Amino acid sequence: MVIDGMADRPLEELGYKTPLEAAKTPNMDKLAKTGICGIMDPIKPGIRAGSDTSHISILGYDPYQVYTGRGPFEAAGVGVDVLEGDIAFRCNFSTANDDGIIIDRRAGRIREGTDELAEAINSITLEDNTEIIFKESTGHRAVLVLRGKNLSDQVSAADPKYDGKKWTKVLALDDSKEAQKTAGILNEVVEKSYQILKDHPLNQKRLENGENPANIILPRGAGAVPHVQAFSDKYGLKGACIAETGLIKGIAKIVGMDIVDIEGATGGIDTNLGNIVQGILDTSSEDYDFLLINIDGADEAGHDGNTKDKLEFIQKADEVVGKLNAMEDFYFILTADHSTPISVKDHTGDPVPLVINGPEIRVDDVESFNERSASKGGLCRIRGSDIMNILMDLMNKSTKFGA
Amino acid sequence: MVIDGMADRPLEELGYKTPLEAAKTPNMDKLAKTGICGIMDPIKPGIRAGSDTSHISILGYDPYQVYTGRGPFEAAGVGVDVLEGDIAFRCNFSTANDDGIIIDRRAGRIREGTDELAEAINSITLEDNTEIIFKESTGHRAVLVLRGKNLSDQVSAADPKYDGKKWTKVLALDDSKEAQKTAGILNEVVEKSYQILKDHPLNQKRLENGENPANIILPRGAGAVPHVQAFSDKYGLKGACIAETGLIKGIAKIVGMDIVDIEGATGGIDTNLGNIVQGILDTSSEDYDFLLINIDGADEAGHDGNTKDKLEFIQKADEVVGKLNAMEDFYFILTADHSTPISVKDHTGDPVPLVINGPEIRVDDVESFNERSASKGGLCRIRGSDIMNILMDLMNKSTKFGA
Repeated sequence: MVIDGMADRPLEELGYKTPLEAAKTPNMDKLAKTGICGIMDPIKPGIRAGSDTSHISILGYDPYQVYTGRGPFEAAGVGVDVLEGDIAFRCNFSTANDDGIIIDRRAGRIREGTDELAEAINSITLEDNTEIIFKESTGHRAVLVLRGKNLSDQVSAADPKYDGKKWTKVLALDDSKEAQKTAGILNEVVEKSYQILKDHPLNQKRLENGENPANIILPRGAGAVPHVQAFSDKYGLKGACIAETGLIKGIAKIVGMDIVDIEGATGGIDTNLGNIVQGILDTSSEDYDFLLINIDGADEAGHDGNTKDKLEFIQKADEVVGKLNAMEDFYFILTADHSTPISVKDHTGDPVPLVINGPEIRVDDVESFNERSASKGGLCRIRGSDIMNILMDLMNKSTKFGA
Repeated sequence: MVIDGMADRPLEELGYKTPLEAAKTPNMDKLAKTGICGIMDPIKPGIRAGSDTSHISILGYDPYQVYTGRGPFEAAGVGVDVLEGDIAFRCNFSTANDDGIIIDRRAGRIREGTDELAEAINSITLEDNTEIIFKESTGHRAVLVLRGKNLSDQVSAADPKYDGKKWTKVLALDDSKEAQKTAGILNEVVEKSYQILKDHPLNQKRLENGENPANIILPRGAGAVPHVQAFSDKYGLKGACIAETGLIKGIAKIVGMDIVDIEGATGGIDTNLGNIVQGILDTSSEDYDFLLINIDGADEAGHDGNTKDKLEFIQKADEVVGKLNAMEDFYFILTADHSTPISVKDHTGDPVPLVINGPEIRVDDVESFNERSASKGGLCRIRGSDIMNILMDLMNKSTKFGA
């Protein structure tokens, strides 16, 4: 169970405690009392991990090999069945004029009807039988997947990053034929998207309503879908993922876990934690060996620099932990995927606390669960990539190396 | 700030305390109280690091890739502007007779005039346009650099190691043409050095004075100058080095740092610590982002097996730490580059204590700075190669890996 971005640095306003140290977390503290604690570097000491690279590492995959870019994980996260070798992109629906100038990168923050627009994009035919798979995500966001031969992820973005600029011609980032070809295809997709979308009935209606039309798609964040050994093959465990954001769901999906969607899970501090608890309990009673749980609100509060929200959300997450007592015969690991300090408003490379509960643990004398107390625990300092090995070993499911 | 060789093992004569534990170090202890402590393996646990390989690691370079031999670092340390691919050697000025027998490997511990002799050596011309760069160091020591095409560092030493032996013909250590060629050039250099130096006016004068002439040079410690990304490119930090020994200065120079020379810095326990303090304070007020400081006396006392000297020098180093309070807006890291236990009189692989001070640190409850108390600190156990990553992260200067 990963409380996203929960770890922090000492804050003057909290008497030089971290939000986790200042928060009342009786259930997490109970885990600390009855378990073994430590601190954990998601990748290695000092390295600032993303949520994606951290979870890849925690699941035992090497992010330096697996993480080719954000596109593949976003695409998988919205439910595209990506295949190894697919080239995936994050996209915005944007508003362009006839000169290609981007008036509004977020197309008036469109919320409805993007599924219809996506259907139109999917009707585009491309050279050399390259297949196009386009799917809307939340709001103005979408993903684009190219599937075919001789493609490359070494291409630049079409997104000009700022309103008022012409969309950027996609360029090959290396000298390969594959990159040249892929850049050409992307430019074709962007141009055709404008031709197809500009007079789309939904956009005519938006214009009538005084809203910016979603008349062009702008890909960015290219990545080739990596070769990844399925989680079930790697560990012999049937895994499910209960997460709020597409990014984490995407990672779980790419490694072949089942994705449990939770109604009302917003990824914010307003998320429906009751539904998440119920989802976890329901899933744990099913035929799964492993659950990956990610709750995102503390990270959001950290990015916002909101101490009160972060502290309160941690206390809510603690209640979630308390309600999971009903889970039986599980090893329970509670940690964060990185620190998102209030003072920094972004991820940092500070290590995160970690606790393991379950049978036959070498229980240590740590009494509370936080960044500093956990550093005195029996696990000392480990890495994200150690967790699955430790867990497999505790479950007596790993293979002896040697005689 | 690296107190060279400061760490040690418990000594019976100190009531089973280490010199650092037994010494009065109120300023280092204050750093511990207000900072976060840990122990650090310069390379990895149990590996006996040199000062050079440890510093290479601490600066975030892989010594297994970068450290090709001592020659390049010594050459850079005495001010030769070495270039990638140069083959560098440590040399002695020695005394030979006409039969090539080495009478005195240290040429009567010559102290003066070696610059004149070096000038003579630099007049040697070599086959195939190979350039020779020869520079005197302290006493009978010097460095030799060969620059040209098709050279190799896979060559043996000319130094026979003992007086009374003929100088050793340099041999190729592999079958490559490059090694054969380089061995040939080196033998030529040694022979020509004798021809040029034997009747040199300075040596005639030495003979008149009953001193052994410095009439031959004997290279050893071959190493190819490695490819090293400049420190400023790697981290975006402008760095300066305040060190006493050529070896540490050489490492700093090879990674492109500015070298600050300190008058009276001997590298021994008699060094002028006042000048070193002033040099640090002056340099910290200049336009630098990073200072690498190395003070060498504790290592010397360790090599000598002198408990009293080591303990006293540590106390003097503590005063240096106290005088650096005037430095502002710096993260301050205090550590050692390796242990040099009194009982061993050489470096060992025991981990060293480390403390980090600065804004937003997760201050731990360690109250004194030494090998054992630091092992209970919030950093737990890290490696030399982690330090720059941790520092860059604390300074919010690192790039996030992922989203």
